[in-house]
Amino acid sequence: MDASADNTLGVIEPQLYQHSEPFALQNGQQLNGYELVFESYGKLNSDRSNAILICHALSGHHHAAGFHSMEDTKPGWWDACIGPGKSIDTDKFFVLSLNNLGGCHGSTGPNSIDPTTGEIFGPNFPNIVVKDWVASQAQLADHLGIKKFVAVVGGSLGGMQAMQWSIDFPERVHAAVLIASAAKLTAQNIAFNEIARQAITTDEDYCAGNYQQFNKNPDKGLMLARMVGHVTYLSEDGMKTKFDREIKSGDFEHGKDVEFQVESYLHHQGRAFTQYFDANTYLLMTRALDYFDPAREFDGDLTRALEKTMAKFLVLSFSTDWRFSPERSQEIVDALVRARKNVASAIIESEHGHDSFLLPIARYTKILGAFLERSQVELNQSSKLQKAQELV
Amino acid sequence: MDASADNTLGVIEPQLYQHSEPFALQNGQQLNGYELVFESYGKLNSDRSNAILICHALSGHHHAAGFHSMEDTKPGWWDACIGPGKSIDTDKFFVLSLNNLGGCHGSTGPNSIDPTTGEIFGPNFPNIVVKDWVASQAQLADHLGIKKFVAVVGGSLGGMQAMQWSIDFPERVHAAVLIASAAKLTAQNIAFNEIARQAITTDEDYCAGNYQQFNKNPDKGLMLARMVGHVTYLSEDGMKTKFDREIKSGDFEHGKDVEFQVESYLHHQGRAFTQYFDANTYLLMTRALDYFDPAREFDGDLTRALEKTMAKFLVLSFSTDWRFSPERSQEIVDALVRARKNVASAIIESEHGHDSFLLPIARYTKILGAFLERSQVELNQSSKLQKAQELV
Repeated sequence: MDASADNTLGVIEPQLYQHSEPFALQNGQQLNGYELVFESYGKLNSDRSNAILICHALSGHHHAAGFHSMEDTKPGWWDACIGPGKSIDTDKFFVLSLNNLGGCHGSTGPNSIDPTTGEIFGPNFPNIVVKDWVASQAQLADHLGIKKFVAVVGGSLGGMQAMQWSIDFPERVHAAVLIASAAKLTAQNIAFNEIARQAITTDEDYCAGNYQQFNKNPDKGLMLARMVGHVTYLSEDGMKTKFDREIKSGDFEHGKDVEFQVESYLHHQGRAFTQYFDANTYLLMTRALDYFDPAREFDGDLTRALEKTMAKFLVLSFSTDWRFSPERSQEIVDALVRARKNVASAIIESEHGHDSFLLPIARYTKILGAFLERSQVELNQSSKLQKAQELV
Repeated sequence: MDASADNTLGVIEPQLYQHSEPFALQNGQQLNGYELVFESYGKLNSDRSNAILICHALSGHHHAAGFHSMEDTKPGWWDACIGPGKSIDTDKFFVLSLNNLGGCHGSTGPNSIDPTTGEIFGPNFPNIVVKDWVASQAQLADHLGIKKFVAVVGGSLGGMQAMQWSIDFPERVHAAVLIASAAKLTAQNIAFNEIARQAITTDEDYCAGNYQQFNKNPDKGLMLARMVGHVTYLSEDGMKTKFDREIKSGDFEHGKDVEFQVESYLHHQGRAFTQYFDANTYLLMTRALDYFDPAREFDGDLTRALEKTMAKFLVLSFSTDWRFSPERSQEIVDALVRARKNVASAIIESEHGHDSFLLPIARYTKILGAFLERSQVELNQSSKLQKAQELV
C-alpha cells in the first residue's frame, strides 16, 4: 500500500488545537492550557452533523489513517477501517482523530515544557484519567463547532473513552462504539500493567522519570513493557499459527543459544517501540487504564452509571481476545440492557486476540460500517424531525 | 501447621549424593562429577520396591515435605500431598525428592565452584536439558539401589521429567504421573519465559551473569521475572476472587499513587523470590522448559516418541490453568492412546490456575492417592509373578 493507492486518504496533514484557558483535571490539579495534535479525514458537512470521533488505545496517537508523505510506506494505525469506502467511510463522514492529553506524539504531555517552570514536565506531569481525556476532546469538538457526534468510536482504552463520552455528554453522542473494551480492568489486566511499569521504573536509565535531563532513556524497561503488552495482545492460537516453535537461530539439538521466532519477534517489537514511545506517557496511559471504573461512584453498579446515557451502543469483541475478553464486553451489554438502552453486540471470530480490533476482518468491518451508516441516517432524520417541530 | 503436628513428617534432614565420575551432558559438554542434594520421606522396603520419585518444577527444590527444624513454620513445597496418610503416603512409600542439577539449593549449579577453574561457574555453567536431569536422577536411584520406581511424579516442568523418565528408562518406571504439564511449550509459554529472561539479563546488576564476582545480584530483574511468572500461575478468576480491584493504598478518586492489592501481592512475591532464588538458575530452568520437546526427534510425532514407554500413565490438569492448559494434557493423553498405552486422565475443577497442582484439592488428591496405591499393588503382584516364573 502507498499514499497514491485508490482506497487511501493520501497525504494527511496533522493540525494543532491550542487551548489557552486553564484546564481543571479530575485529580484536583490544573493545566495552564494545553495543545492537542489531531487529524481529520473526509469533509465536515454544512450543519456539522457528520462527525465521528476516534479515540485511541494505549500506544495509539492521532495518526489513525492516511500517510504523512508520498514516501511514507506505513499508513495510520486504523487505516484498515478508515478511508474512502471503508467501514468508517470518509466519503460520508468527517472523521476526527487526536493524540490524547499526556501523549507523546505532539499533544501536551510529559515531554512538553511546563510553562510554570520552563522545564520539561517529565514525571511531574499530572495524572490523567479517561474523564479528563473526554473533557479535552469535548473542547476540541467545541472548537470545531461539532455539537454532536454521529459516533464516538474506540477500541480497547479507546472504547473506555467512548463509554465515558456517553456518560459525560449524553446529548453529544448519537452512537457509541465500544470495541474489545471493558467497563474496568480485571486484577490480571492490572497485574500485567504493573509489570510493565515496574520494568520501566526499575530501569536505571529511568532516573526517577527525569531521563531527558540526563540525556538517557529507559529503553530496556520500555522494551520489556512492550514485550509484555504484545504477548497479551496476541492469542495463544494466533501465536501458534504465527510462530509455533520455529527456531530463528542457534543449535537446538545441543541446547545452545537457541532463539525461537517468537523471541525474535518480541525483541524486534520491543526495540522498535523505544524509538517512538515515551516512558512517562506509557506509565500515564496504563494508570488511566487501571483507574477507569465508571461504576465505582455508583457502588459498583454499571447499570446505574449508564442510566443517563442517550446514545445507541455497538459493543464488539473478539473470540480469542483474552486481554479484553468477550465476557468483559458482555458485562457492558448486560448493564446496558438492564438500563433499557439501545444496544447491539457481536462476538467476532478471529484468531488474532486483542489485536483483532485493528485488522480488516470482514464480519467486523461490515457490522461496523452498517451500524455507522444507519446511525447517520437516524441522526439526519431526528434533526429533520426536530427542525420540523421547531417550525410548528 | 508446625513440625510437631500429627500429619506431618516432622523434621527432615537433607542428604547429599556425590557423583565423582564425569557426567556427559546432552549439549556435548561434561561435568567432572556433580552433587545432588536430596530428601527422602518414609522407609525404603527390603526389596526397594516402594520408591516414588518427585520431580520439581521451575522454582522448586529438594525440600518437598516436612520441616527443616522444630522452629520452622513453613513446610516443604508439596507438603499438601506428601506425608503420612496423604495422597503420596509416606506410611507406604519411600519418597525421594532432589534438587535438580543446575539448581540453587545445594545441587551442583551455576553457584558451585567449577573444579577446573576454581571459580564459580556463574554464566559458564553448561545448558541443562530435561534428559540430563533424568540421567542424573537415574544415577541417584542407582546409588540408592532403586531399580524401578513405583511412580515418577511431577507437576509442570516436573511432569516433563516424569515423561522423559518413561521414554529414557521404560523398564524403571512402573507409573508416570504428569500433572499440569505439556509435551512442549507453546509460543506463548516461550514468550513469557523470554520476557523473564530479558528482565534478568538487562538488569545492570546481572553483569553478564558474573554478579557474584561483583558482589551484586540482579534483584530487580529477578523480581520482575517472578511477577510475570506469578500472573501466569494464577487464573483470571482466581485473581478476581483473591484481589479483584481492591485498593491497598493511595487516593483512587484523585488518581494518586494508588496501589491495588494485586500489585502489592506481586511486589511481595517478587521481592521474596530474590532472597531464595539464583538468577542464572532461573535462566537455566526456563531454557530447559523451552527446549523440552521429546517428539522433535520423531518428526514432531509424540505418539512415536512415546512408543517404547512401558509405564502406565496418569495425566492430570486443572480447569483454569492457562499456562499448561487441559488441552496440553489432552495432547499427551491422545498420543498415549494412539500408542496403545495404559493411560488415565482427569481435568480437575479448580479456580487456582497452574498453582492448583500444589494445593490439596479433594478430587485431585484422591485420584492421585488411589492411582499410586493401585500402582504399588500391581508392582508387587508383577514382581511376585516374576519371582514365581523364575522358580519354575
